[in-house]
Amino acid sequence: MRRLVFFIAAAGMFLLTALAHAQTDPLPAWNDSAAKARIVDFVKAVTNPAGKDYVPPADRIAVFDNDGTLWAEKPAYFQLLFAIDRVRALAPQHPEWKTTQPFKAAIEGDFDALAASGEKGLVELVMATHAGMTTDAFAKIVSDWIATAQHPRFKRPFTDLVYQPMLELLAYLRANNFKVYIVSGGGVEFMRVWADRVYGVPPEQVVGSSIVTRFAMQDGKPVLVREGKIDFIDDKAGKPVGISKFIGRRPIFAFGNSDGDLQMLQWTAAGDGPRFMGLVHHTDAEREWAYDKNSAVGRLDAALEAADKNGWTVVDMKRDWKQVFPFQQ
Amino acid sequence: MRRLVFFIAAAGMFLLTALAHAQTDPLPAWNDSAAKARIVDFVKAVTNPAGKDYVPPADRIAVFDNDGTLWAEKPAYFQLLFAIDRVRALAPQHPEWKTTQPFKAAIEGDFDALAASGEKGLVELVMATHAGMTTDAFAKIVSDWIATAQHPRFKRPFTDLVYQPMLELLAYLRANNFKVYIVSGGGVEFMRVWADRVYGVPPEQVVGSSIVTRFAMQDGKPVLVREGKIDFIDDKAGKPVGISKFIGRRPIFAFGNSDGDLQMLQWTAAGDGPRFMGLVHHTDAEREWAYDKNSAVGRLDAALEAADKNGWTVVDMKRDWKQVFPFQQ
Repeated sequence: MRRLVFFIAAAGMFLLTALAHAQTDPLPAWNDSAAKARIVDFVKAVTNPAGKDYVPPADRIAVFDNDGTLWAEKPAYFQLLFAIDRVRALAPQHPEWKTTQPFKAAIEGDFDALAASGEKGLVELVMATHAGMTTDAFAKIVSDWIATAQHPRFKRPFTDLVYQPMLELLAYLRANNFKVYIVSGGGVEFMRVWADRVYGVPPEQVVGSSIVTRFAMQDGKPVLVREGKIDFIDDKAGKPVGISKFIGRRPIFAFGNSDGDLQMLQWTAAGDGPRFMGLVHHTDAEREWAYDKNSAVGRLDAALEAADKNGWTVVDMKRDWKQVFPFQQ
Repeated sequence: MRRLVFFIAAAGMFLLTALAHAQTDPLPAWNDSAAKARIVDFVKAVTNPAGKDYVPPADRIAVFDNDGTLWAEKPAYFQLLFAIDRVRALAPQHPEWKTTQPFKAAIEGDFDALAASGEKGLVELVMATHAGMTTDAFAKIVSDWIATAQHPRFKRPFTDLVYQPMLELLAYLRANNFKVYIVSGGGVEFMRVWADRVYGVPPEQVVGSSIVTRFAMQDGKPVLVREGKIDFIDDKAGKPVGISKFIGRRPIFAFGNSDGDLQMLQWTAAGDGPRFMGLVHHTDAEREWAYDKNSAVGRLDAALEAADKNGWTVVDMKRDWKQVFPFQQ
């Protein structure tokens, strides 16, 4: 009896699998370019149990940068736009901000003055807007903002500004039993609020920058309070550190778009066996933006050079993507 | 055709599932005690799609302390015994250790003097033995030690000193689509080397204490170097912080054995919906050890009081476990 049941189940699953394989292009928003072919070839190679490049499912770790790789990052990182909106919302309680930088610049939307305030200014802005509340309260603030705020150019929710070809790539990898992680310089508790809904990436697969949280009892209930102190910066050389700390395995697939991703790509490339390293090159001023080595946000210079030198895959957005955003049919 | 295939597959899977459900006790090393019944009742409740306590698989996060909960912790934390063995191995290169504490105590196996060196002494010991090499080199050192070192009382590898009832519990939870995490005060890179093989818990599901690592290029190859600086202590109030940082969801199931787990249990208990909080109480001096509120290692006092007050499940090792270690048939 048990053998018969098993046979029926196995036969059914085999036919289902065969049907699934016969289905259409998993990456329809990609033009039939070399980049697409390299992705598909890589996935086929590591999932072919009979091939020399086979990788067991548990080791199929894929990491993606977020800003500029999965969603847009212009005119500024969306989390910075969130911080600016928070400064404006909190300004009535802080009359001194009207005359103090970087808050004055944030209230006035003066990006040049913000940039001039440097990293110190940005940290001040983040601390004033991202700390001093519980983790639950912060998640609520982010959730409310992401539901209502609009991108200045496209007049749509920021979560509409995700790249259709990358959504397809995430789904394609998951369908091939990859475990997909975000490894971003952005705040981990900012991204976790919406990453599952938007990308299908659950909270425990989001790695990012963090501020210190502290356990406390409030009215007899345990809470985590967000403190005004940086815990970890998951950018540049911090990305391999974050990968090692949070994932504890070396990825076999990594995608980024800027010099902030260089070390993550190097770290991925240095493992044994088959590897895929990819970069999104923003070349489409019409549908999105065109920028690389001279851009303050998402600068792509050393990483592009490394890609050329090492044969990593560079996706030319204008040439390689049939569609950029889901709303651009 | 597609519908027929689907029907055959579904029918086969249904029969397979029915067969699986008809199988025997998932927790054979547990006596039929109240503790076992509460575990089984909880798992049945949260996995019953028709019940009021149903929890979707993605939210079935279970967290386990390691030392004293999944494996033994006497006569001292096994990672401390590892550090002592490392001090002895490295001593020829450090003649000054013969006369300097805490190294002298480690070389001589003098636990009283080690304890007297306090937290500062322990940190010194850890830094001298756990830092100054790449992550790959450290993993190799741990791997070699765990393969050869023997427990002083049982004269067996330390990974034999795991609790058979807890191995069954981990498997039972996984079979019910829980995602099982270790959340331990122990070093994350110490545990990740063997946790998958011994517990079936993959590296990315191990949360623990860590030291700072730094990305560097060595001979043109990227490496992560372990630095002599504490990054994060995943103990006591640090456990909810670690859970929030690494997992980003609140567990619905938590198991510990000492006051170091109190805040993790409080944090788990404070969520909405059904919750399971458990403690292993070491009451079996014959098969294992008997200790609680007067023990320096694994002190169980405030957490036991909280368990009594809040109705958490306390496992009495002597009474509730038919078998302790896998080798004790």
